[in-house]
Amino acid sequence: MSDTLVVVGGDAAGLSAASKAKREDPEMDVVVFEKGQWVSYAACGMPYYVKGDVPELADLVALTPEEIREERDIDLRTGHEVVAVDTGSQTVTVAADGERFDQAYDHLLIGTGASAVVPPFHGTDLDGVFTIHDMDEADAIERYVTERAPETAAIVGGGYVGIEMAEALSARGLDVSLYEMLPNVLQPFGEAVADVVEDHLREQGVDLHLETAVSGFAGEGRVEAVQLDGGESHAADVAVVGVGVRPNVVLAEDAGIELGPTGAIAIDEYGRTSAANVYAAGDCAENVHVVTGEPDYVPLALTANRAGRAIGQTLTGSPTAIGETAGTAIVKAFDLGAARTGILDEERASDAGFDPVSVTITDATRAHYYPGSEEIQVTLVADRETGAVLGGSVVGRDGAKRIDTVATALHGGLTVTELQNADLAYAPPFSPVWDPVLTAAKVLAGKLER
Amino acid sequence: MSDTLVVVGGDAAGLSAASKAKREDPEMDVVVFEKGQWVSYAACGMPYYVKGDVPELADLVALTPEEIREERDIDLRTGHEVVAVDTGSQTVTVAADGERFDQAYDHLLIGTGASAVVPPFHGTDLDGVFTIHDMDEADAIERYVTERAPETAAIVGGGYVGIEMAEALSARGLDVSLYEMLPNVLQPFGEAVADVVEDHLREQGVDLHLETAVSGFAGEGRVEAVQLDGGESHAADVAVVGVGVRPNVVLAEDAGIELGPTGAIAIDEYGRTSAANVYAAGDCAENVHVVTGEPDYVPLALTANRAGRAIGQTLTGSPTAIGETAGTAIVKAFDLGAARTGILDEERASDAGFDPVSVTITDATRAHYYPGSEEIQVTLVADRETGAVLGGSVVGRDGAKRIDTVATALHGGLTVTELQNADLAYAPPFSPVWDPVLTAAKVLAGKLER
Repeated sequence: MSDTLVVVGGDAAGLSAASKAKREDPEMDVVVFEKGQWVSYAACGMPYYVKGDVPELADLVALTPEEIREERDIDLRTGHEVVAVDTGSQTVTVAADGERFDQAYDHLLIGTGASAVVPPFHGTDLDGVFTIHDMDEADAIERYVTERAPETAAIVGGGYVGIEMAEALSARGLDVSLYEMLPNVLQPFGEAVADVVEDHLREQGVDLHLETAVSGFAGEGRVEAVQLDGGESHAADVAVVGVGVRPNVVLAEDAGIELGPTGAIAIDEYGRTSAANVYAAGDCAENVHVVTGEPDYVPLALTANRAGRAIGQTLTGSPTAIGETAGTAIVKAFDLGAARTGILDEERASDAGFDPVSVTITDATRAHYYPGSEEIQVTLVADRETGAVLGGSVVGRDGAKRIDTVATALHGGLTVTELQNADLAYAPPFSPVWDPVLTAAKVLAGKLER
Repeated sequence: MSDTLVVVGGDAAGLSAASKAKREDPEMDVVVFEKGQWVSYAACGMPYYVKGDVPELADLVALTPEEIREERDIDLRTGHEVVAVDTGSQTVTVAADGERFDQAYDHLLIGTGASAVVPPFHGTDLDGVFTIHDMDEADAIERYVTERAPETAAIVGGGYVGIEMAEALSARGLDVSLYEMLPNVLQPFGEAVADVVEDHLREQGVDLHLETAVSGFAGEGRVEAVQLDGGESHAADVAVVGVGVRPNVVLAEDAGIELGPTGAIAIDEYGRTSAANVYAAGDCAENVHVVTGEPDYVPLALTANRAGRAIGQTLTGSPTAIGETAGTAIVKAFDLGAARTGILDEERASDAGFDPVSVTITDATRAHYYPGSEEIQVTLVADRETGAVLGGSVVGRDGAKRIDTVATALHGGLTVTELQNADLAYAPPFSPVWDPVLTAAKVLAGKLER
């Protein structure tokens, strides 16, 4: 009899694992339980649906349930919630249509994802107050904007979801205010990026409130105002709360599976949890940081896809490490691209045993005489003693994907001098002779010599 | 008394060394002899001057002679040709204004550059037959196009100069024919790139003649036709010969300085030649290839700049390696960008002791649902036994700078699996979840497993 793989969660990690396992071993029985109706969707695309760049919500779906079932021969069950895992008997308990049943597994993958954090604000039950963490919510906010024609929007949280939603709602014609508790937006991107992005947000008409804590929302049935700590109140016909996510670990925790220091499910290099034959991947699980070698929590799409795929290979007989993460991220903020990788934060670098030195340079994306050149800012951080590159950021109207050069340098363990000597591509339409990343490395190498 | 640095050649390598040395040691006497009148110019920008994208030829000059002399305190002498080097007495013989004089040096940098190869064609002395290897030539061709209003152009050579000039002259309204002896244009970029570029050149109206050898040019005083081996003749009111460059090594050779296997000046990791206190850098010198560890000839701007700068540091007391090259190159071909790095050629890989395996994938530059996504093709080559990445290429309307990820992987010595696991940046406006480079690595890793 062939093995049964049970997958909890029908999104990036779960379906990548299911697809890969089935492709490598067509005899394997693969069952995917998804408690909702949406599967295989691009959560990162939701702001662009609200904005209007993506015509249909269904455009965000990579594979329909029918394709998954018929073309991939995966037993996908939507509307099925796994409510318990018994790691001893190797069974899961599933709730669907008011009934419960048990399903045995030889291999189990927990891909329960993450949920949007909603702080203890008052008034979050008012009409027009949204998070944007699943497709139903994206659909609801789009309809709210279309049908209720709000004129003012309050975005709570200056992370990438907040910034993408600020862009989306501005494009829909709303006056957008953004509230961030910290002194800067995009905190993980560092201050150098934040300064540029904040200026740009203001230029684009976003009313930016930094170091401003929200207490809740007020209105009669529907939201009419956002209220701040201290009592101030601003008009808001619609509100989006995007203050971060937390991993969905209750199922794993209840089954006695170990969590790691970040609060997500602890896994080894193959994605294995503390329970035999139980794997975890995606937004519910930890990862190993390529610079520190320590557990990290990177709830992003690529991490989930890659880990799922690797686990699919591992449990069909080809042990495949899920790889390490660098916390690489990129976000569009109106006309800017902002990107980061590795360790930018001085305190975090010091905690990991490094002596961080950093530079920020401003350069151009093309040769100085070539038309269409844009300003670009690159930050690099390195360890004083070893010269190892620890992290970096890039921000500009063009070329933010240059962060990939820095990310690859982290995976290669390059020093700043080695990065400075990397043979990057130059021609006038594409770069100055010294690519901005090289210029940053050159300046940082000079600083390290002193 | 302070040391004297003599530099032969006032372009990328020479002026980078002179500037760095003077900055690190203001007491040093730095003399730069340049036989022509142009210094510190961006040769790579010349096609864009001819095209009309760059208004003035002088826009290509980074530093004027006055800035070099006054702001950088460098004794720059244009119109001065170094005709001999005596490595025993440490003097150079200089010719200027019909006179000769000797100049002693403590350190000598040979930065004599390269010259355009002109094959033994007949009729190259006709008006309207150009190479485009220096500023005077760029000036002359631009004036010829403006004043003589040619209608048809023959480009000989399908390398990057040929392709950039095809774009430039098409933009000026000429009917352009391009003649290449080999079966493909852009030979060092590999067939996968060439196929895409050739289709695009044809779409853009370039009359492409592959595997076609030119014998010379015909006309009365001025060029009227290009003639092919075999006797065929095509109308051409202007012709540009761009079939490659060769290093200017006569000065070094006559001084008894060793050349390397590529025919360029042999240097060590600090840019030192076989003669004491004599360095060489830029288009006249060899480099070490990061993949093979063998001498290579990469006459490109970044290599020259970086080596010059490193030598300036070395001879002011901070020994600095000039770094290794990967042969990274990028070229704009009308609306396409094409890029390459490392070893793409199977024969060359085999000669270097590798067992090359390659894949070419076609992907999109953005998430499938995000507007403005373009097709992009990535080729990766790896060694079967070790899995080490050996090289790669990228071609597409957008995103050719992604080659930098591959180049950085070469410098980091990454395997295909390690590259596949690199944490590159994803958000819908910038990339699919798996960046096209990662997808290529994923497919190649799968091929290597078999």
